[in-house]
Amino acid sequence: MPEYSIGVDLGGTNLRAAAVSSTGEIIDKTSAQTNLGQGAGPLLDDIAGNIRSLAGRIDRDGLIGVGIGVPGFIQMEEGLIVGANNLPELEGVPVRDEIEKRLGARVILENDANAAALGETWIGAGKDVDSLVLLTLGTGVGGGIIHQGRIMHGAVGMAGEIGHTMVVPNGNPCGCGNHGCLEKHASATAVEGMAYMMGLGENVTSRDVYEMAEAGNEQARHIFLRMGVSLGIALSALINIFNFPLYLLSGGVLPAWSHFAPAMLEEIERRSFTYRNTKTRVERAVLGNEAGLYGAAHLPWQEKSNS
Amino acid sequence: MPEYSIGVDLGGTNLRAAAVSSTGEIIDKTSAQTNLGQGAGPLLDDIAGNIRSLAGRIDRDGLIGVGIGVPGFIQMEEGLIVGANNLPELEGVPVRDEIEKRLGARVILENDANAAALGETWIGAGKDVDSLVLLTLGTGVGGGIIHQGRIMHGAVGMAGEIGHTMVVPNGNPCGCGNHGCLEKHASATAVEGMAYMMGLGENVTSRDVYEMAEAGNEQARHIFLRMGVSLGIALSALINIFNFPLYLLSGGVLPAWSHFAPAMLEEIERRSFTYRNTKTRVERAVLGNEAGLYGAAHLPWQEKSNS
Repeated sequence: MPEYSIGVDLGGTNLRAAAVSSTGEIIDKTSAQTNLGQGAGPLLDDIAGNIRSLAGRIDRDGLIGVGIGVPGFIQMEEGLIVGANNLPELEGVPVRDEIEKRLGARVILENDANAAALGETWIGAGKDVDSLVLLTLGTGVGGGIIHQGRIMHGAVGMAGEIGHTMVVPNGNPCGCGNHGCLEKHASATAVEGMAYMMGLGENVTSRDVYEMAEAGNEQARHIFLRMGVSLGIALSALINIFNFPLYLLSGGVLPAWSHFAPAMLEEIERRSFTYRNTKTRVERAVLGNEAGLYGAAHLPWQEKSNS
Repeated sequence: MPEYSIGVDLGGTNLRAAAVSSTGEIIDKTSAQTNLGQGAGPLLDDIAGNIRSLAGRIDRDGLIGVGIGVPGFIQMEEGLIVGANNLPELEGVPVRDEIEKRLGARVILENDANAAALGETWIGAGKDVDSLVLLTLGTGVGGGIIHQGRIMHGAVGMAGEIGHTMVVPNGNPCGCGNHGCLEKHASATAVEGMAYMMGLGENVTSRDVYEMAEAGNEQARHIFLRMGVSLGIALSALINIFNFPLYLLSGGVLPAWSHFAPAMLEEIERRSFTYRNTKTRVERAVLGNEAGLYGAAHLPWQEKSNS
């Protein structure tokens, strides 16, 4: 029986897990609801139980380790989750050690955007490069930075918070304390907020705005143009700072690429001499929701090849 | 005779070189004018001659290699200098190989701000950390990023161009094509431009503006306050992106620290939740003009310890 790792995408609603080979093939997978409201202990039992049963269907001895992607900050050294709004019960809980104890297997915790960036680098849109930045355009704007094949964590694991780069100095206030954060101008939430402000209706989703734009609605198109400009400002700075070969976008707003990308690329072309003078690519990620699962599964393989 | 490296700080006016031990002690040093106007060949002969005579005063056999810090972009792979406005004769010249040939010793080229960042990490304000960002506030704003003890170069060696981070979306136009670049709002040149605009006089230097601020001139103080806000905006983004433990400022405007730092730190405190929630330090570099020399000298040692 060949060896495999298990990657877990742990969200506030669902837990998905996949057993993955060293070359990125999915051997088996599972999904379950995340049962919140019962306290940390039972939730950790649930998570470990799902992982254990997946491993049990294959071969427990082949499991080299488990990677878990989580929305929130990970304090890498302690294996703690902090600031996980969707998983309040795990806030401040030593999740890594608790699950390791339950499974008797090595566990690595990782921020979900970081895991997605690693997944795209491993077998996705970035498989031909070893350094890239991924921006996830969803409820917020998440970021993951891969440098020479590894996730950049920073001092305590909080690196990559690109969504809080200021793109409009006195723009919309953000919960982080800043004003004009990228995620206030380029996330699904931002698209919905702009749609509301422009009178496109209440409870309009970013998907609705996309469909309006597709149907030729000028206001909807203008919203994506503004989003493109904001993304372009942030990406210009990133390109000048990192000089990486590749910057990827993913997330729920990605289908609107044809509406926001032209303004984004025009802004980058104008603002970044590094972009104009190097073969820098700004492209769509390709793994969608699977990126985080693959990235989480890659973590134990990466650790193994390093030891 | 113990081994030593030679670090060179090659500017448009002066060439400085120091022979440095593995622990950062200067064994001997030299300086000379950079004789421009005679073409690349004689200039390279001059540079190599200065290095050779310094080595000759010590012991040629002890020389492990030469690091050269240069203002401009370095295409690392080819060892080319591009965009070196102060050294037009070396533009596009394979400087590394030409000097290696003349010296018969290993040569490593590096951007001067990157070298300064490495010097501060080796034996300066950053010697207790292994990751930091250095901003040099001079004619422009240069940047160097050290990650886990090594300079981040990016794909072709252009990483670290933090001076071209936008801090005012429709601010002063920059030669790079962007508007409102940090270096248009926080360099010595920017301070002088603001002083001129505010009627503080023509040909006023940033040093003059500093002295006016010291003497209580409200307009001069306001200039440094604006500079502080711009630095704060850029540093907030860097702190959120990197989560490094240390960010250093150096360069000709550093003496005005007491005038710009309060506004800068207030802006960072307000704009960066990572700053508020971690032990992030924003401090003055300590090596001044010697930082680049030390950093250049450290490059051969770093390469040696790696091989």
